[in-house]
Amino acid sequence: MKIIHILFLFTFISFTICHASVNDFCVADLKAPITNSGYPCKPVKSVTSDDFVFHGLVAGNTNNSFKLGVTAASVTNFPALNGLGVSTIRVDIEEGGFAPMHTHPDATELIISIQGEATVGFVTPTGVYTKVLKSGDLFVIPPGLLHFVVNSGKGKAMGYAAFSSENPSTQITDLLLFGNNLPSDLVAKTTLLDLAQVKKLKAQFGGSG
Amino acid sequence: MKIIHILFLFTFISFTICHASVNDFCVADLKAPITNSGYPCKPVKSVTSDDFVFHGLVAGNTNNSFKLGVTAASVTNFPALNGLGVSTIRVDIEEGGFAPMHTHPDATELIISIQGEATVGFVTPTGVYTKVLKSGDLFVIPPGLLHFVVNSGKGKAMGYAAFSSENPSTQITDLLLFGNNLPSDLVAKTTLLDLAQVKKLKAQFGGSG
Amino acid sequence: MKIIHILFLFTFISFTICHASVNDFCVADLKAPITNSGYPCKPVKSVTSDDFVFHGLVAGNTNNSFKLGVTAASVTNFPALNGLGVSTIRVDIEEGGFAPMHTHPDATELIISIQGEATVGFVTPTGVYTKVLKSGDLFVIPPGLLHFVVNSGKGKAMGYAAFSSENPSTQITDLLLFGNNLPSDLVAKTTLLDLAQVKKLKAQFGGSG
Amino acid sequence: MKIIHILFLFTFISFTICHASVNDFCVADLKAPITNSGYPCKPVKSVTSDDFVFHGLVAGNTNNSFKLGVTAASVTNFPALNGLGVSTIRVDIEEGGFAPMHTHPDATELIISIQGEATVGFVTPTGVYTKVLKSGDLFVIPPGLLHFVVNSGKGKAMGYAAFSSENPSTQITDLLLFGNNLPSDLVAKTTLLDLAQVKKLKAQFGGSG
Amino acid sequence: MKIIHILFLFTFISFTICHASVNDFCVADLKAPITNSGYPCKPVKSVTSDDFVFHGLVAGNTNNSFKLGVTAASVTNFPALNGLGVSTIRVDIEEGGFAPMHTHPDATELIISIQGEATVGFVTPTGVYTKVLKSGDLFVIPPGLLHFVVNSGKGKAMGYAAFSSENPSTQITDLLLFGNNLPSDLVAKTTLLDLAQVKKLKAQFGGSG
Amino acid sequence: MKIIHILFLFTFISFTICHASVNDFCVADLKAPITNSGYPCKPVKSVTSDDFVFHGLVAGNTNNSFKLGVTAASVTNFPALNGLGVSTIRVDIEEGGFAPMHTHPDATELIISIQGEATVGFVTPTGVYTKVLKSGDLFVIPPGLLHFVVNSGKGKAMGYAAFSSENPSTQITDLLLFGNNLPSDLVAKTTLLDLAQVKKLKAQFGGSG
Repeated sequence: MKIIHILFLFTFISFTICHASVNDFCVADLKAPITNSGYPCKPVKSVTSDDFVFHGLVAGNTNNSFKLGVTAASVTNFPALNGLGVSTIRVDIEEGGFAPMHTHPDATELIISIQGEATVGFVTPTGVYTKVLKSGDLFVIPPGLLHFVVNSGKGKAMGYAAFSSENPSTQITDLLLFGNNLPSDLVAKTTLLDLAQVKKLKAQFGGSG
Repeated sequence: MKIIHILFLFTFISFTICHASVNDFCVADLKAPITNSGYPCKPVKSVTSDDFVFHGLVAGNTNNSFKLGVTAASVTNFPALNGLGVSTIRVDIEEGGFAPMHTHPDATELIISIQGEATVGFVTPTGVYTKVLKSGDLFVIPPGLLHFVVNSGKGKAMGYAAFSSENPSTQITDLLLFGNNLPSDLVAKTTLLDLAQVKKLKAQFGGSG
Repeated sequence: MKIIHILFLFTFISFTICHASVNDFCVADLKAPITNSGYPCKPVKSVTSDDFVFHGLVAGNTNNSFKLGVTAASVTNFPALNGLGVSTIRVDIEEGGFAPMHTHPDATELIISIQGEATVGFVTPTGVYTKVLKSGDLFVIPPGLLHFVVNSGKGKAMGYAAFSSENPSTQITDLLLFGNNLPSDLVAKTTLLDLAQVKKLKAQFGGSG
Repeated sequence: MKIIHILFLFTFISFTICHASVNDFCVADLKAPITNSGYPCKPVKSVTSDDFVFHGLVAGNTNNSFKLGVTAASVTNFPALNGLGVSTIRVDIEEGGFAPMHTHPDATELIISIQGEATVGFVTPTGVYTKVLKSGDLFVIPPGLLHFVVNSGKGKAMGYAAFSSENPSTQITDLLLFGNNLPSDLVAKTTLLDLAQVKKLKAQFGGSG
Repeated sequence: MKIIHILFLFTFISFTICHASVNDFCVADLKAPITNSGYPCKPVKSVTSDDFVFHGLVAGNTNNSFKLGVTAASVTNFPALNGLGVSTIRVDIEEGGFAPMHTHPDATELIISIQGEATVGFVTPTGVYTKVLKSGDLFVIPPGLLHFVVNSGKGKAMGYAAFSSENPSTQITDLLLFGNNLPSDLVAKTTLLDLAQVKKLKAQFGGSG
Repeated sequence: MKIIHILFLFTFISFTICHASVNDFCVADLKAPITNSGYPCKPVKSVTSDDFVFHGLVAGNTNNSFKLGVTAASVTNFPALNGLGVSTIRVDIEEGGFAPMHTHPDATELIISIQGEATVGFVTPTGVYTKVLKSGDLFVIPPGLLHFVVNSGKGKAMGYAAFSSENPSTQITDLLLFGNNLPSDLVAKTTLLDLAQVKKLKAQFGGSG
């Protein structure tokens, strides 16, 4: 094949070049208002390779009552994920520690167990699904279902989880019920818990009322 | 269980708090330009309980030729619905009144009959589906199908309808055909109506041409 | 305009008629296996007007500890809703009654208050949004958020709610935590509740372990 | 580079081969029941190149009152389009002919004018958008909007239209209003047309009642 | 029917008029930042009939090495397509010319052959699907699959293609591999091509490294 | 609070129990035909905890020319992922090994680097984005873009990748171009490669023609 004349070539493909980049990716402009479909895109010409890498998925601090450390890489700290439908967390749980009951209403959670032994489970209105995970095991939690993780082995447990959303929400049941100023008797009534129990947990979670 | 140290606790859950609210809801900022996925979100910190309640779904004025009153709660007057995929209307029809043939191209309409008797129906290229509704009955109209409601009983008929969109469009056939300045002979040709009929309805619906 | 020859007319529109009905609606064939996009469709020729009406949205039985009656019209008992993205419930709450804390992970709930006075609210990781509703008021609960309703007035409270899904799931926190065979100490650990409290509620909700 | 050992190579890529084909395409199995997301897929091994070609988009018969011929290639006669979100029609209109007022509730229509001159337009509740098209012009009609096409030039007009759906529905206003057995007085009432006009069109479109 | 009092009429339908136009269409404001769901909408009152017509789908310049001319009508030059899920191109290929291997990851391509003879094909991990197209034939290429078109007849070949996206991306394999500054040995290694071959094509496509 | 009468309680919540499980999850019935929205669901009563765990994400065999091992957990071998929008792979690359140029048209790939050093990159029509990853780094590849991974360090490199689809397709450029029976001169023409180069790679990848 003879040499291609670049000038002619680009006559043909220029239609592609002028706009294609706008939808090859959409790195979030976090300073613009968020919408129902995520953040507006940064201009393509200001995007570099550095936008697509993330160095911060390190072990979280486990020096708390749960002996639990969680570090997240989602669109709010890794803007390249905007619109891409996936994110991840690193979870570290010291021996005896756990992640309390919570849900992610808008995202599947796919756990990759890396180290240690963890007991994980979720509940539905009609069933309980729970397993003991060893290193290398996967476990999937469908969206919206109440679940927990307990370090049930010796030593530290560590793993990653992938979410089917770049910005999954996390609803921790205790924090929702007890970490706010809803009147304690209203919480007791609508949870069927004893009032003393509600007041005790309100104190622990920083709630009032 | 011993007392949880709030400070430690929040080391763990702070990752959640800093961003979770951004996608728990997205109350519309109606002053920003609308997009294909609705309005941009108001800042979470300016959202209050008042945003989630709506007091205006009162009986509409039925003092018109249709004896029909319609009041709507959709994203343009109830901004909390932004992105939430549902809205509602209240419909009041005096004895003898009706809602003329119309469509909602982008939304299902689920009617809840509250009072009186109404005859409701929709048509497809191959069938007619019509029922007489009494108080408490539901009737569902799939998206995009031409439909009507007639008060076929004694006294007033009243009901609500839920839509599968926070911003359903309404296409009233007569208003579309006769409430504009398309030439009457063009309308007559493309509807197969008599020219005199077209001119008569143009006069009624404020059209010209 | 001269008479149209029907035969000729249908030469043109036959392409429409032969298939259009297949996607004008999709009434569920509930006996076929469900898929990620709902149920397969019943043959159009077996669908009648009766498929689109529902008579069963009557007052539910409130003779229970919650003094709560809930009746639903969703795809499993009103198959015409299949794929249409909307459903509804009727809620009756006697004086002093309530709906306990629960979530709908995959659906917005838009409440239409019809009778009485109800206090409704939802919580997020960063806020509490609660209102007292009177007859005619609307209140919207975004998907996935923990919420409750209490009859806070005199006499019965009644209302409807529309969901942005034809098959919304309902996750009642107490039933999930206490209505199963998860070991009580595991529930206590992952909820931070006292063990005695867990056992007491397990007894009430029919759980074991 | 030395010769690759095919055997070793396929150790690695076999994971891809065993399943990738299942979602590279999904040619419709038209004999299986349709679902909300289209037809189930034919087995990949029974799919050939012939599935992806369509020879039938020829000129339609214009020997009718509209002087209009329409031929369609959509999923029901071109099963490879299943799930692919696009389809097309060929439209031929003899001098003086037209396409009557109609809508496609679930699809955009993008017209490519090939021959002749056509006047095309659509109406919304607040506006009329109409243009005269020459050969080579494009015109786009958003989903759900009432529109028409008239051959406004000398000789035949011909063009193609692309739809943003593999199975667009077509709702021809006259056929819906007059081609069925709805009582004429009900049609007259809900369309505001004169009863005589309704009866005249019922006769033309094969309706009764 | 007596004359309708316009004033009364509009009491009823005003709820529709005030907002319906916002979602009947969404013509792109190309100067605003793009989002994951496309461009924000131009104000409806500045939209005219001219927004919905496009005159530029003319024959492209084929005076290049591929003897290929491509002209596109997509959202970036035809802003009315914003959010509408369809776009189109015109393709002209002189005798002996061709479109090189490329993909559209996010869009189906439905080819309408108008003139001449073209050989078109796509490949999957498990199969090859190729056909010779004559005037009037359609051929569909599922999203993401590598494909090509060759003028395999006498004289010019011309056709249109519809895409299931208003802004399809185009990934031309050669341009991606050779039109940039990736080191030649890295390209050679990851493509298994000979280094001399890589350097030759880098020279042709304007790449360096 | 006094003891709740279980019988009464279940009067209220039975509406939930009878159907809620159908959309809490949808484990694939792999023996049923796949659809555009995935596989039909297994009956809930046959689903157990074992469905949600996966033990097979072990190191793949790297004894091949690429020194590359890939093991996948996607819907076809982990049916619980059906409809859940996420899957994962484990990638092992020996020193000097690499993953050749390929795309995933319908899925984002989010790489979690666990061990060793890898150079990863993707190309768009207008740019090259490449980085050297160390243990703990993340890198995201938007859908549809051509990319590669090279072990650029000492010793083995290992990592996981999460996809935004439960059934991502993989399109390996070399396999598509050279692993089939397309005529070599057609491949040479449409790739601009030398014919000898095409024939050489056809031999390596098991293609003919």
